[in-house]
Amino acid sequence: MAGSVFGNLFKVSTFGESHGEGLGVIVDGCPAGLKIDSEYIQKDMDRRRPGSNKFGTKRNEGDKVRILSGVFEGVTEGTPIAMVVFNENQKSKDYSAIMDVFRPGHADMGFWEKYGIRDYRGGGRSSGRETLSRVASGAVARRFLEELGIQVKAYVTEIAGVKAEKRDFDEVSKNPLFMPDKEAAEAAAEEIEKAMQSKDSVGGVIECRISGMPIGVGEPVFDKLDASLAKAVMSIGAVKGVEFGAGFGAATLLGSENNDGMRMKDGKITKLTNNSGGVLGGFSDGDDVVFRAAFKPTPSIARLQQSVTRFKEDTDITVNGRHDPSVVPRAVVVVEAMAALTVADLMLMNMSARMDNVIKIYKEK
Amino acid sequence: MAGSVFGNLFKVSTFGESHGEGLGVIVDGCPAGLKIDSEYIQKDMDRRRPGSNKFGTKRNEGDKVRILSGVFEGVTEGTPIAMVVFNENQKSKDYSAIMDVFRPGHADMGFWEKYGIRDYRGGGRSSGRETLSRVASGAVARRFLEELGIQVKAYVTEIAGVKAEKRDFDEVSKNPLFMPDKEAAEAAAEEIEKAMQSKDSVGGVIECRISGMPIGVGEPVFDKLDASLAKAVMSIGAVKGVEFGAGFGAATLLGSENNDGMRMKDGKITKLTNNSGGVLGGFSDGDDVVFRAAFKPTPSIARLQQSVTRFKEDTDITVNGRHDPSVVPRAVVVVEAMAALTVADLMLMNMSARMDNVIKIYKEK
Amino acid sequence: MAGSVFGNLFKVSTFGESHGEGLGVIVDGCPAGLKIDSEYIQKDMDRRRPGSNKFGTKRNEGDKVRILSGVFEGVTEGTPIAMVVFNENQKSKDYSAIMDVFRPGHADMGFWEKYGIRDYRGGGRSSGRETLSRVASGAVARRFLEELGIQVKAYVTEIAGVKAEKRDFDEVSKNPLFMPDKEAAEAAAEEIEKAMQSKDSVGGVIECRISGMPIGVGEPVFDKLDASLAKAVMSIGAVKGVEFGAGFGAATLLGSENNDGMRMKDGKITKLTNNSGGVLGGFSDGDDVVFRAAFKPTPSIARLQQSVTRFKEDTDITVNGRHDPSVVPRAVVVVEAMAALTVADLMLMNMSARMDNVIKIYKEK
Amino acid sequence: MAGSVFGNLFKVSTFGESHGEGLGVIVDGCPAGLKIDSEYIQKDMDRRRPGSNKFGTKRNEGDKVRILSGVFEGVTEGTPIAMVVFNENQKSKDYSAIMDVFRPGHADMGFWEKYGIRDYRGGGRSSGRETLSRVASGAVARRFLEELGIQVKAYVTEIAGVKAEKRDFDEVSKNPLFMPDKEAAEAAAEEIEKAMQSKDSVGGVIECRISGMPIGVGEPVFDKLDASLAKAVMSIGAVKGVEFGAGFGAATLLGSENNDGMRMKDGKITKLTNNSGGVLGGFSDGDDVVFRAAFKPTPSIARLQQSVTRFKEDTDITVNGRHDPSVVPRAVVVVEAMAALTVADLMLMNMSARMDNVIKIYKEK
Repeated sequence: MAGSVFGNLFKVSTFGESHGEGLGVIVDGCPAGLKIDSEYIQKDMDRRRPGSNKFGTKRNEGDKVRILSGVFEGVTEGTPIAMVVFNENQKSKDYSAIMDVFRPGHADMGFWEKYGIRDYRGGGRSSGRETLSRVASGAVARRFLEELGIQVKAYVTEIAGVKAEKRDFDEVSKNPLFMPDKEAAEAAAEEIEKAMQSKDSVGGVIECRISGMPIGVGEPVFDKLDASLAKAVMSIGAVKGVEFGAGFGAATLLGSENNDGMRMKDGKITKLTNNSGGVLGGFSDGDDVVFRAAFKPTPSIARLQQSVTRFKEDTDITVNGRHDPSVVPRAVVVVEAMAALTVADLMLMNMSARMDNVIKIYKEK
Repeated sequence: MAGSVFGNLFKVSTFGESHGEGLGVIVDGCPAGLKIDSEYIQKDMDRRRPGSNKFGTKRNEGDKVRILSGVFEGVTEGTPIAMVVFNENQKSKDYSAIMDVFRPGHADMGFWEKYGIRDYRGGGRSSGRETLSRVASGAVARRFLEELGIQVKAYVTEIAGVKAEKRDFDEVSKNPLFMPDKEAAEAAAEEIEKAMQSKDSVGGVIECRISGMPIGVGEPVFDKLDASLAKAVMSIGAVKGVEFGAGFGAATLLGSENNDGMRMKDGKITKLTNNSGGVLGGFSDGDDVVFRAAFKPTPSIARLQQSVTRFKEDTDITVNGRHDPSVVPRAVVVVEAMAALTVADLMLMNMSARMDNVIKIYKEK
Repeated sequence: MAGSVFGNLFKVSTFGESHGEGLGVIVDGCPAGLKIDSEYIQKDMDRRRPGSNKFGTKRNEGDKVRILSGVFEGVTEGTPIAMVVFNENQKSKDYSAIMDVFRPGHADMGFWEKYGIRDYRGGGRSSGRETLSRVASGAVARRFLEELGIQVKAYVTEIAGVKAEKRDFDEVSKNPLFMPDKEAAEAAAEEIEKAMQSKDSVGGVIECRISGMPIGVGEPVFDKLDASLAKAVMSIGAVKGVEFGAGFGAATLLGSENNDGMRMKDGKITKLTNNSGGVLGGFSDGDDVVFRAAFKPTPSIARLQQSVTRFKEDTDITVNGRHDPSVVPRAVVVVEAMAALTVADLMLMNMSARMDNVIKIYKEK
Repeated sequence: MAGSVFGNLFKVSTFGESHGEGLGVIVDGCPAGLKIDSEYIQKDMDRRRPGSNKFGTKRNEGDKVRILSGVFEGVTEGTPIAMVVFNENQKSKDYSAIMDVFRPGHADMGFWEKYGIRDYRGGGRSSGRETLSRVASGAVARRFLEELGIQVKAYVTEIAGVKAEKRDFDEVSKNPLFMPDKEAAEAAAEEIEKAMQSKDSVGGVIECRISGMPIGVGEPVFDKLDASLAKAVMSIGAVKGVEFGAGFGAATLLGSENNDGMRMKDGKITKLTNNSGGVLGGFSDGDDVVFRAAFKPTPSIARLQQSVTRFKEDTDITVNGRHDPSVVPRAVVVVEAMAALTVADLMLMNMSARMDNVIKIYKEK
């Protein structure tokens, strides 16, 4: 209940501070009989890792995931899957500059007021390293969804003020910014360079597309598919907004423009447009689920900022150290992870919605 | 778990279909000793009700809330507070036109696929009447927050494409659109008229401001204040996007622009701007919590639309009947309700974050 | 979280005080497509009601259950099933005698300390009438289990110190004490008479047998089938102990005596004895689940007892009014209800334990 | 939801199989500012470990607990406390004898049916080693309760058919059976010897006493203090029954005998007897909470037993290897752990029961 547990049936519990012994996660409720191994999970971990490109932090600690339980002979057992990443690279650094100062744009003040204690070494629990646990468990959820024909793909549609005009999905893995538009990626890279030179940082937007969804996933009223995804994605550190389909744009449309008409196509109900973003009334509507998340610029910047200390005195601060000019590229896999965890959970919950499904499991063995 | 239960410590369970016997809610976990009565709750119910103005549906059934338990001699007992609104006005209408058709922009198809059964009389569980339960329980949460000096106020900042340019809060209750800008409200009213004449509907944006928040409310990682609010608000029927503070705009700012500097002011830590929307790292930061929700236009319109039947045949449909040209004005109190429920729950959860608080309760009686 | 919500997937929320407007329950998560009506539920309600016999309280208010939502044309819709029983028979009585006194054996003192407020009129939330909500929701669970071939039957195996020596199940419904042993029932009736004459009350033991269970229901570690049942049954007002199979007797057996050997019989794995009570390692083992619950004697007795007031003064008290000499006979259906709710919930949770079940639902439509 | 998560506010998630890489637990929700270190926790781990005495298994792997997160400079941070014990001593043994056989008295058959896969190496998730995670997290809960003046002490009151006649608490730590009666411990040791010689095993009863409880802890209706403790304790592998205070004996008492009278004593409400076991109406009543748990004899015995294989063939089996003749002595600290976890959770939940407590935290800083 203290906020480090996510999901109902596909339930994950995470732990770890950026400068503690390690970080990790327990996945409780992954069905037994799913093929998975640490190599599969490591691939997602590596996508989150600062790559060889210049836009990632220099800290590179491998972040090798180790499975401690729940997988036996390459297959999930139905028991909790525990995964851990040990911190290898904590330099005994001098933190005196930020120890007593609340950094602008960070959780420092909130942590201090809430707990009366704070691990001042690099963000502690609110460090971006916390997302390691999301990615590791999200990879298990992704593996689960693959078996059901569901794919979760995210990519950067805007960064440093440069928008992707195309959706060239083959391009996504080819540029360091994970944009589906080569030209936009190049233009954005230049803008990021500029920001770096002026010791500044940039934000952006990640779009995520979930394909292969059956109709009817999501619970009515409070646990709607879109509401659940919104929470999951908004819980990622720097996210300030989430929208589905036409999103904020829908507010300016007429009903006749925004409603997606329907027609039968190849024996399947097909929406003629996807302003709904694949969610109607909180249920998946058979179309691709499409949402976007807005990320603020990295708050840690080496420019002088106005701040206060925990002793309630004014001060000025520059946050030095290894900081990404933008968290957006590395957040792509984190968005996918949260989406996969949410959908996996709602898929399991949806299984008992109908009496005929219950009978199929118990009476038609 | 089937989606009609919200909250952890301040927990609500709702029920009811638009054309069943009644709708209602149980609030379990409201602290004992809070003064409340049905008049207080009815005030919020009445704000949700279609008013005397021309933009609300004609159906006016009073929607009188009745408290069945949990309040004794005007004070909460600590036991579940059950509230019910009986449906008085269900006309025995002819539903054959929509009985087998999936209305565009509605949950009909999802309901049918998920449950294999559907109450075709006016939306059933996914009717807007479902929000009655949110408003009734939200009023209890609002009463609770009042005692702690916290106010939740929402208002319409955009409707039918017309944006409020001002934030004149005194104006909000004076115009039928609940806009904080008289001129905008008048211009918007004209646009809505036009849409109505062409049998169409409009969307809009509601902004919500929560003032008086202590610092540190919200749980780190998954149950962040903004993430929890996002889910709560996105779970309202027609919402397609939620953003905090600078929101999607933050994606285009530099870190130096987006970070809110801090200074001491009257002995209090004060942010110089509020791009954070009052939430940093998932914790309230002492500033007003400010978020916006985008509402799509009402999907029920009397224009001909392309659709399909549950027998998987193409058809065309016009949705006649009593339908608001926009749900936005009536949704203002619903947004407030969901915000109040979320904050009340997180306030209770936050109580045990610190050992000194625990000791204050148990050892310093 | 405040204790009036039970279950995970088959989730119930209850409300109501003995002297408020009414009591009731919401069932959220009952699969859609289950045939049920209020007559079915009323049958269980009537078994809980004080009968025509002399051992029940004289208060007879009908306790007619009314379904407000979730059932459409005789079938569950998948939406919350709300049921309410209005209190019809609250006499405007003089409560001054017990208003400020903590009755021995009752929750009065705890209520007062916990909430600082107490509905002194007949127990309020801790009245036996609270079990109405359990029985109504338990009937829905029972209906659900019936469809899966699972039966839940409880009966009195001991009351007023008289033990049933037989398990003659046909006899159970024929005597007012619901004992599976006619002679024991007659002897017990005499003992209860004696207790009544001396203004005293008696306790007893209820045994419950759940037949038709598939193997593997129950979750490992914390949510074991027996652990979950123990909590469910122990949460009934007067229960002081719960045991499964050989129960406390198992503590005195040798492993070779207590272990149930296994043999194939008619193609089915069959245990040769049932010391396990149908639960091994927290999973159903295919045998009947058998447990017993010990009930203390009714604490409300018309004999003089030593007590204290809420002003912390010694006093003596006799609790007059309509009180059963034993809650045991009326608790039979309550035990069944709690067992049915627990098993229904664990049956739904068990559906997603195996990948092949998930695939059966989503890929083999 | 898959059963490896316990608690609401003081929430633990456990993982680990007996022959995997390791076992462990995350504690989420322990208040910040509690002094604790691994030495404190190790003390409880060592009490669980097979001692030097002849009644424990020979396997001794140290079971050193390692804290990975949540504790900074000797104090809890409010973030998740992760603890892990690596398995050091897994011999590459020949499991072919039990690989396909369902051992009597074990979870083997249930595991196989539920998951379709089973870690046949020594019980996997249903091994007694699973309790390591309970003890580690229970030690954190114990530390928390200590700060509030609450003590949890368990001891063996019956083993191998020998009952402790005394409650000499100083004696408990002096004999290898943790009995509060020296003579009984000696007599029981002889009985255990006899059972061992005949390759058999014995059961017993553990009593637990929780002192220093404030009045009113526990939630009404479903989450009563006794119901919650019953589930917690019944979830320990071999437990077959739980009772409070007079327990099953209460079923045979008259109301006038069973009710605990009350008198003021030294300004405090005092019960004259404790038949309630410290719980009335689900709330702590200020007296010591006293309950007993019945443990069945260890099911793994080296005597020939009738069994079946997973291929549904009859077979006979002797379970060789390192097995305790009784789990009871080592379970003492496990019972304490589960009791401490339950009480810690309910203490946190109880904090928000009253409005004046909420105000104390938020308005009287």
